[in-house]
Amino acid sequence: MTFDMTTNPFDDDKLHEECGIFGIIGNESATAMTALGLHALQHRGQEAVGIVSFDGEHFHAKHALGQVSTNFSNETIISQLMGSAAIGHVRYATTGETSLRNVQPLFADFEFGGFGVAHNGNLTNAYTLRTELVKRGCIFHATTDTEVIIHLVAMSRQKTLIDRLVEALKQIEGAYSLVCIAKGKIIGVRDPLGVRPLVIGKLGGAFVLASETCALDIIGATFVRDVEAGEVVILNGDTIESLRPFGNTPRRFCIFEYVYFARPDSFLDGHSVYEARKKIGSELAKESPVEADMVVPVPDSGVPTAIGYAQESGIPFEMGIIRNHYVGRTFIQPTDRIRHIGVKLKHNANRKLIEGKRIVLLDDSIVRGTTSVKIVEMLRAAGATEVHMRISSPPTKHSCFYGIDTPESEKLLAHRHTVAEMAKFIGVDSLAFISIDGLYRALDEKGRNNTQPQYCDACFTGDYPIRLTDFENKDSQNELSCLAKEA
Amino acid sequence: MTFDMTTNPFDDDKLHEECGIFGIIGNESATAMTALGLHALQHRGQEAVGIVSFDGEHFHAKHALGQVSTNFSNETIISQLMGSAAIGHVRYATTGETSLRNVQPLFADFEFGGFGVAHNGNLTNAYTLRTELVKRGCIFHATTDTEVIIHLVAMSRQKTLIDRLVEALKQIEGAYSLVCIAKGKIIGVRDPLGVRPLVIGKLGGAFVLASETCALDIIGATFVRDVEAGEVVILNGDTIESLRPFGNTPRRFCIFEYVYFARPDSFLDGHSVYEARKKIGSELAKESPVEADMVVPVPDSGVPTAIGYAQESGIPFEMGIIRNHYVGRTFIQPTDRIRHIGVKLKHNANRKLIEGKRIVLLDDSIVRGTTSVKIVEMLRAAGATEVHMRISSPPTKHSCFYGIDTPESEKLLAHRHTVAEMAKFIGVDSLAFISIDGLYRALDEKGRNNTQPQYCDACFTGDYPIRLTDFENKDSQNELSCLAKEA
Amino acid sequence: MTFDMTTNPFDDDKLHEECGIFGIIGNESATAMTALGLHALQHRGQEAVGIVSFDGEHFHAKHALGQVSTNFSNETIISQLMGSAAIGHVRYATTGETSLRNVQPLFADFEFGGFGVAHNGNLTNAYTLRTELVKRGCIFHATTDTEVIIHLVAMSRQKTLIDRLVEALKQIEGAYSLVCIAKGKIIGVRDPLGVRPLVIGKLGGAFVLASETCALDIIGATFVRDVEAGEVVILNGDTIESLRPFGNTPRRFCIFEYVYFARPDSFLDGHSVYEARKKIGSELAKESPVEADMVVPVPDSGVPTAIGYAQESGIPFEMGIIRNHYVGRTFIQPTDRIRHIGVKLKHNANRKLIEGKRIVLLDDSIVRGTTSVKIVEMLRAAGATEVHMRISSPPTKHSCFYGIDTPESEKLLAHRHTVAEMAKFIGVDSLAFISIDGLYRALDEKGRNNTQPQYCDACFTGDYPIRLTDFENKDSQNELSCLAKEA
Amino acid sequence: MTFDMTTNPFDDDKLHEECGIFGIIGNESATAMTALGLHALQHRGQEAVGIVSFDGEHFHAKHALGQVSTNFSNETIISQLMGSAAIGHVRYATTGETSLRNVQPLFADFEFGGFGVAHNGNLTNAYTLRTELVKRGCIFHATTDTEVIIHLVAMSRQKTLIDRLVEALKQIEGAYSLVCIAKGKIIGVRDPLGVRPLVIGKLGGAFVLASETCALDIIGATFVRDVEAGEVVILNGDTIESLRPFGNTPRRFCIFEYVYFARPDSFLDGHSVYEARKKIGSELAKESPVEADMVVPVPDSGVPTAIGYAQESGIPFEMGIIRNHYVGRTFIQPTDRIRHIGVKLKHNANRKLIEGKRIVLLDDSIVRGTTSVKIVEMLRAAGATEVHMRISSPPTKHSCFYGIDTPESEKLLAHRHTVAEMAKFIGVDSLAFISIDGLYRALDEKGRNNTQPQYCDACFTGDYPIRLTDFENKDSQNELSCLAKEA
Repeated sequence: MTFDMTTNPFDDDKLHEECGIFGIIGNESATAMTALGLHALQHRGQEAVGIVSFDGEHFHAKHALGQVSTNFSNETIISQLMGSAAIGHVRYATTGETSLRNVQPLFADFEFGGFGVAHNGNLTNAYTLRTELVKRGCIFHATTDTEVIIHLVAMSRQKTLIDRLVEALKQIEGAYSLVCIAKGKIIGVRDPLGVRPLVIGKLGGAFVLASETCALDIIGATFVRDVEAGEVVILNGDTIESLRPFGNTPRRFCIFEYVYFARPDSFLDGHSVYEARKKIGSELAKESPVEADMVVPVPDSGVPTAIGYAQESGIPFEMGIIRNHYVGRTFIQPTDRIRHIGVKLKHNANRKLIEGKRIVLLDDSIVRGTTSVKIVEMLRAAGATEVHMRISSPPTKHSCFYGIDTPESEKLLAHRHTVAEMAKFIGVDSLAFISIDGLYRALDEKGRNNTQPQYCDACFTGDYPIRLTDFENKDSQNELSCLAKEA
Repeated sequence: MTFDMTTNPFDDDKLHEECGIFGIIGNESATAMTALGLHALQHRGQEAVGIVSFDGEHFHAKHALGQVSTNFSNETIISQLMGSAAIGHVRYATTGETSLRNVQPLFADFEFGGFGVAHNGNLTNAYTLRTELVKRGCIFHATTDTEVIIHLVAMSRQKTLIDRLVEALKQIEGAYSLVCIAKGKIIGVRDPLGVRPLVIGKLGGAFVLASETCALDIIGATFVRDVEAGEVVILNGDTIESLRPFGNTPRRFCIFEYVYFARPDSFLDGHSVYEARKKIGSELAKESPVEADMVVPVPDSGVPTAIGYAQESGIPFEMGIIRNHYVGRTFIQPTDRIRHIGVKLKHNANRKLIEGKRIVLLDDSIVRGTTSVKIVEMLRAAGATEVHMRISSPPTKHSCFYGIDTPESEKLLAHRHTVAEMAKFIGVDSLAFISIDGLYRALDEKGRNNTQPQYCDACFTGDYPIRLTDFENKDSQNELSCLAKEA
Repeated sequence: MTFDMTTNPFDDDKLHEECGIFGIIGNESATAMTALGLHALQHRGQEAVGIVSFDGEHFHAKHALGQVSTNFSNETIISQLMGSAAIGHVRYATTGETSLRNVQPLFADFEFGGFGVAHNGNLTNAYTLRTELVKRGCIFHATTDTEVIIHLVAMSRQKTLIDRLVEALKQIEGAYSLVCIAKGKIIGVRDPLGVRPLVIGKLGGAFVLASETCALDIIGATFVRDVEAGEVVILNGDTIESLRPFGNTPRRFCIFEYVYFARPDSFLDGHSVYEARKKIGSELAKESPVEADMVVPVPDSGVPTAIGYAQESGIPFEMGIIRNHYVGRTFIQPTDRIRHIGVKLKHNANRKLIEGKRIVLLDDSIVRGTTSVKIVEMLRAAGATEVHMRISSPPTKHSCFYGIDTPESEKLLAHRHTVAEMAKFIGVDSLAFISIDGLYRALDEKGRNNTQPQYCDACFTGDYPIRLTDFENKDSQNELSCLAKEA
Repeated sequence: MTFDMTTNPFDDDKLHEECGIFGIIGNESATAMTALGLHALQHRGQEAVGIVSFDGEHFHAKHALGQVSTNFSNETIISQLMGSAAIGHVRYATTGETSLRNVQPLFADFEFGGFGVAHNGNLTNAYTLRTELVKRGCIFHATTDTEVIIHLVAMSRQKTLIDRLVEALKQIEGAYSLVCIAKGKIIGVRDPLGVRPLVIGKLGGAFVLASETCALDIIGATFVRDVEAGEVVILNGDTIESLRPFGNTPRRFCIFEYVYFARPDSFLDGHSVYEARKKIGSELAKESPVEADMVVPVPDSGVPTAIGYAQESGIPFEMGIIRNHYVGRTFIQPTDRIRHIGVKLKHNANRKLIEGKRIVLLDDSIVRGTTSVKIVEMLRAAGATEVHMRISSPPTKHSCFYGIDTPESEKLLAHRHTVAEMAKFIGVDSLAFISIDGLYRALDEKGRNNTQPQYCDACFTGDYPIRLTDFENKDSQNELSCLAKEA
């Protein structure tokens, strides 16, 4: 009658960013700065963390499972990772791969010295490349796609590290932002379409690379610019050298970063995330108005959109759902007579507030829909007379292959159902998603340019801008290693 | 140049509730229910947790340092604490006392069986009583005031447990809510003035006791009523027996529970906490209006008050400060050139939003003021043109002796300074606290009844309703035990 | 087909000493010295260890499960237990009681200061006293018999600590050696018959108390004398004060300390343990000679006796069984087709040596006999043509109630069987035990003085010299606490 | 005045075997059997342990720091390493390399499947090969020499795994015994001179490979034969296939295995280790007789030699030094006034036995000599009137490069001093080592055949039978990786 359940029920029903990356060169406290930067990027991955530093002669590394503050709060560890250059990585790990050997940054010794790489994104031809490399005698140690990059650099016949890296980049396909470290430099790379974010900052005489600007803020660095789509930037202490190995490519940044993944206080590819979310709320209020007593966000992600909706509609914004921040990994469900205990571990209806009221409920997306069902039931049990749900993204109908953990498309509620069916399933009085053009309007576009879309929106439209080589190749179903997970 | 610093810089500059308590009888999953209830009360104490259950013959116990979800997520542990009755406790421990021997519930074997007790509050004559009990041959095991209660019950010459407990209650002074367990019953007690909260709930055939109603919500229990000031309730599976050993006493509930301690979704002593906070915001907007572009809360505690202020004033509510929820205990400060890194571990200014704006900043209280200084500086660094601070409590001038962890009064900013001085110290353009009468108005009173105040507001007024015996007695400065903390 | 099994199969078939105790006063490194002394006494108890020190003002304590070297190897911990006086305890815990609350030394605050006590032995009226003390309002924290002593001291109406302690000693029955600590002194106590050992040593200006002289050797202390039976010694830095609260009592030291418990390099109550064991071997060779090719000990305990047997008989001494010292707690038995894997985790037959040979096998005792069966089978499987077993104690027929962990008498092989039956059960060609008089002769007596026996030999003879109050009282079967073990 | 010190003072003054290896195929409980076998080989390495199993489809692995019984006592772990074939490794790690990435068996995925290898010995051209492999694009993950073998197999252009392995073997130089696992087979390899041991056993239908026969005994397997010098054996469930890639090579087994490394109950390369040690003792008694009262071994390693010496000389064998088996890693030395506390943590003089006696002290070797100094002082302090030291090996003058951890030769006492100087340094009345011919005689040879020595005795003679390529090459002083140890 009892069983383990996660305390993160909402998280299980969310899409997940898979990584955050950071690098700094020219600062005496490079590792401490990297730890702080990764802390600010913790929302992009909580399951593992690693840092590699360079002290002018040796590289130093620490990789660990768990969060930044758990693993890098100790002064001894910080001081062991000496040097004025460092890169780091936080990771959200999908099931079955959470072993230490997969924790980034990856590192390798080459003939001419050490090389470390931290990767946010997903390669779509990693399996194909790996199979070829094994045939050539390469020994893979981990099961992450990033290791392919290291081996391509190692096997390259080019002379310099940068030439080898560029040769490797030309062989890989997919979405990727990279932060690399080598003797005397850190390197930032963004794939030709710039799907995943990467920004450049400056802190005194030091240069910084980070997934989001919030990681600049925490260390007091100033924002310089985004790394451009298809750009390779080489940072030593003094200058930014820029290469364009792919020439000029049209930018297609991931639009879901604005909807949910990025932190609201970040500024990415020309937009404030908070402002974008408020405008989505405002567009939603225009597209799908409703008569109600209050606008209630599902905290915390729904808050800016709800504020935007409330300001546009004139309906008061209220915290009708309270979030419990003391969440662990799992909890015991006492009996199946207590329904929806999972949802209550993290959220509780503000009963006295919503009793007898008509609610506009704002959330960012519907994945499986199971959590939405429970939230709505919780609101009704607390006395809400009407629940109108408004979603700040179009229906999520397709899996992401570019670095976001999504269920297979068959498990996506919107893949199988109409909006009306979804409304019925979730149990709301009305349900509306923002339109794809409304979403683009919130980003100051006139709408989606269907001949040359301004963003990657494959999860909504199924329009995949990068080839899915492994997926198309049946062999990609095979496993990467005949070694099962370390016991 | 580096040193350990807490990631909870705001918490260090907050008052702390010291405990949350819970009990249930008549439910097969009593321990699991108690773990869930304590999880909902985790904001009342995060440093230790304990549960004692009774299976009809034996008592079972687990005490641990850390949070509920860390220690009670394991099905094995839940199943070891058998029985249909259980009580539990979460604790905020002041420095130097965080050892396992002090984790509650306390338990003792008496001639007639076992007795466990969980305590929220603080006894003001504990040291005096302890000294007497040691002279009579009692051996104290812990250094918590609660152990005095156990020994008074043990040494009583009364026949029944309830008679012994009542005799003990008549000897103790202070603020206390107790949840006790004995063979076939759980017992709830609230001190004569009802300073600390305690509510009764019902879940099917089971009775529940909890510090706040949010702990009823999580298990799906319905709210029955508050335990009254000075009341002893004895709950077996079927009935509520009520004793009034102190006769009728005037109620003086802690008003700070409404301001900060309690969860906004709780309903205590006749008021919704969320509504109370919104009304405080509304009163503040009337008492201390200001021309500004946006109302910004210090998250998360300032949110309801800011909504109330925004709705009353018509100034838009905005999330101008973003909170990082991935907080550990300590972090390394890289260099002292990076100022205010502590504050940034937990909060970041939403730069693009507040740049060039006039801000009304809402917070619940000012204790030392050090955090406020940093928050305001962070807002100005992000470009705010004006910062007007509004506080949802009167100036905190006096220490609490009734179960809230407060610095000595000399360290309270308001104890030493006028509001004008405080504004200057914090660096705001204006600073205003709600008036004591405004605070009472938010709770539907006409104002404070100075001859018979409706609440305990000693931290604002210095009017202590319960005698401070140990404090007045110089001996109370002596230490409780000649055994230093276990290594 | 697999199950957990202990790697200590021999230990399960051995009697166990339950404790070792140590104390020192007058040495700046008192805690480090105590840790070293307890390390030398580790054979007397491996499951828990504790130290209490006194620095002139405060007491300091650490209690832990596990061995001394695991828990006291850290300089930080050693330095936290400040002071020039300390006492310590190692413990062998019987099943179900291995919880931290039972780890000694116990400590209590009294009106006049702190008091700590470490106990080796067993009280035979502890349950009876405990029941009375609970009726008087005492709250027991642990389930060990030693806590009775603390409460008797606390409840005493005598003025001085020593008077209170003496009053307590007059109420307790059983076998006990105590080492106590209080302000400015350590105290050594031996029960009226001196059943358990306790010696006094001197190290420069410091006095030492220890269960065995090997604990003096490790710190370089010199042996002064045994504490006498029924003596209380009070040691401050300078002098030994001696009290005889029981007058002169006949000594009856535990004879099994010579057979097995004590370390061979210890000198106790006038005898070298190693010499005593060699003489037992010599007596055995005279009483039970046999024609054979080699004398083989069961290592390590059988070695000195085997040397004695070999020297007397002229048959060569050989290491026919090799011991594996890398033993953990438990191991997996792969399949039940592999017989006697348990025994092989710890011992292996020296196949090339014993093949085709006639063996005299020396062991110290037979408890259940299950291990002996396996050892003998292992020797035969390795090719031994004859196995003659010689045991350096008389048949163990009776349980010990004086501090040694013995099975109930029904489980003792010798309780139910004749020597001939035992030989058949174990599978040996011949089996002989030393006679009770032979054992006494090995200790330089003419034989056992049956009217006034010189030693406690109750486990062989059933002659219990101290009353078994709890055992005789049916109530003693009741449990000590209605609180089950901490989860 | 206090500092950390090891409790293994003798070990620091001993040579160390660096590894033990084991493999089994054809047994349902392959992993449990491997864990037991490694437990029996624990004396060959205590710092890390690993097992790789194969279940017919997947490989499973666990690598851990610490002992076998600590890491493989858990049934869950045993059951996760499924399959009827497994190999394992225990390791003694030299300073600075004790990180998880170096724990064996190593494993790699090849084009045709998985391959695991466990290695006992040391390659003398590993650095040279590694440098070449990195130039060819290989990425090394660990810093152990064994990884070279894996990469040579991976880069080979041969078709079958066996052909690739043979090609790799022909490139490596040094002393090595290998146990490998691949699909459907385990493989045993011994270097051309057979320096390190490896035996074949049989358990029902299963084949076993192990460093020593004591690992066969523990699981009840029977000894089949030694793997021969220069032989590759391929074991599937049914047959032993034997390859001789190096043709017939003269055998030169490590003679120190008989002196100290191997367990006395093992039978290696045609000799019982126990018998060999006894014969060494006997030869010593003939070569270096002395008039004395007793023969005393330094336990445990000196025991068989002392028995041999005693039997030959007629002087009684006695346990004059008692070993404390409860040893942890480190301990605190209380003050420097207490001399030789380190030695006393592990050994104590049996004072009453040796007082006034003339002692012949038997030990296996003298490395630095520091421990011998302390042992002799301890014996004299306990009253020994004469101490005559006899060593069961010739003077250790040269470092080992074939898998034994030795100090640099300058730190070897015998490298710098004559026997007379050594006797004076150690403080003995006389000192004698067995002669090199005496040692060979104890192994049933007429003496050392200097034109074609029968054993590797380089540590005594400086006659290195295998080329020391890396040592001769100055580059070998460079470090293997520019990545410092993981923090």
